Amino acid sequence: MSKLLQEVIGELSKLPGIGRRTALRLAIHLLRMEPESVADMTRSIDRFRQEVKYCSVCNNLSDEEICPICADPERDHSTICVVEQVADVLSIENTHQYKGLYHVLGGVISPMQGISPSDLKIDLLTERIARGGVKEVILAISTSVEGETTLFYLMNRLRPFEGLKITSIARGIGFGDELEYVDELTITHALRNRREIE
Amino acid sequence: MSKLLQEVIGELSKLPGIGRRTALRLAIHLLRMEPESVADMTRSIDRFRQEVKYCSVCNNLSDEEICPICADPERDHSTICVVEQVADVLSIENTHQYKGLYHVLGGVISPMQGISPSDLKIDLLTERIARGGVKEVILAISTSVEGETTLFYLMNRLRPFEGLKITSIARGIGFGDELEYVDELTITHALRNRREIE
Repeated sequence: MSKLLQEVIGELSKLPGIGRRTALRLAIHLLRMEPESVADMTRSIDRFRQEVKYCSVCNNLSDEEICPICADPERDHSTICVVEQVADVLSIENTHQYKGLYHVLGGVISPMQGISPSDLKIDLLTERIARGGVKEVILAISTSVEGETTLFYLMNRLRPFEGLKITSIARGIGFGDELEYVDELTITHALRNRREIE
Repeated sequence: MSKLLQEVIGELSKLPGIGRRTALRLAIHLLRMEPESVADMTRSIDRFRQEVKYCSVCNNLSDEEICPICADPERDHSTICVVEQVADVLSIENTHQYKGLYHVLGGVISPMQGISPSDLKIDLLTERIARGGVKEVILAISTSVEGETTLFYLMNRLRPFEGLKITSIARGIGFGDELEYVDELTITHALRNRREIE
């Protein structure tokens, strides 16, 4: 078997969710692509890995020292939405509904995985709030056990800031979700937090 | 949003089976990898795309003009197994049961996709057989409509070779397959081709 093929399969299958079979399929696909297209792709991967930075304000991925969202004077700098990861920022941005800023923790507290509060960008958040101007912090953390632990820890760190409004995104039945397939905890929560129809 | 991230998502999502969400997940994973590991991966992809060749005898992927299988004097050069694609060679090689050579067609005849016999390495196969020394050709082509068309076409091209044995791999119920979930055509075929238990 071709050593070049074996090597590329080995390298591609290091990526998450890509087994040897998928890696082979990808490798074969590479051969159908123009060599220049493949070179564009690998160049883009290398540049991304080498040049992308973390925003010094919010810890989101950025090409500059400060990301475009934090640098945007049109956005509401008094509201910070705290999320676990970069992907969450993109999900919220895709709604085009949120005009405040973000803070990317970089994960959740997980003693099982050896992730302690000091591994997350929590100090960066409190320092940011301490500089003033922040009126509301929205916690958009997942409802896993680790998420709840992180939420609890964050609440303790944020409560000392007087006058700071701390909110959590609403939990409930998603649009398009069928009740039949929704877990009990979500249903319980959605029932407790029911709203009168106006 | 980071342009570098947007670019890498765009590039990765050109690969088959990788949507923008998966591309984002892969990009985030790249950041957790050592820069040197990422560079190894992209270098391997570039080398593979630029340097891998097709064996001039059997059309399998190869690092050299002639692939290690065709160049191996220990293999049975009188038997050629005709397959659609490179992945099929790997599947058969993984069984460690087959000691003959291969011939990779590079696809199947598909008028719908504009793939005609001349797009496949069929002439290469007949020229190979014409050079002599081949006793048996095993057709290991898939049982799709396109596969059957290709099989029919190949039979017409191979029949003129006098004394050449042409076989097809056995079709039937796979080991571990449950009859309940096997399609009717396979069951029909498996019943017709039943064998007496000795």
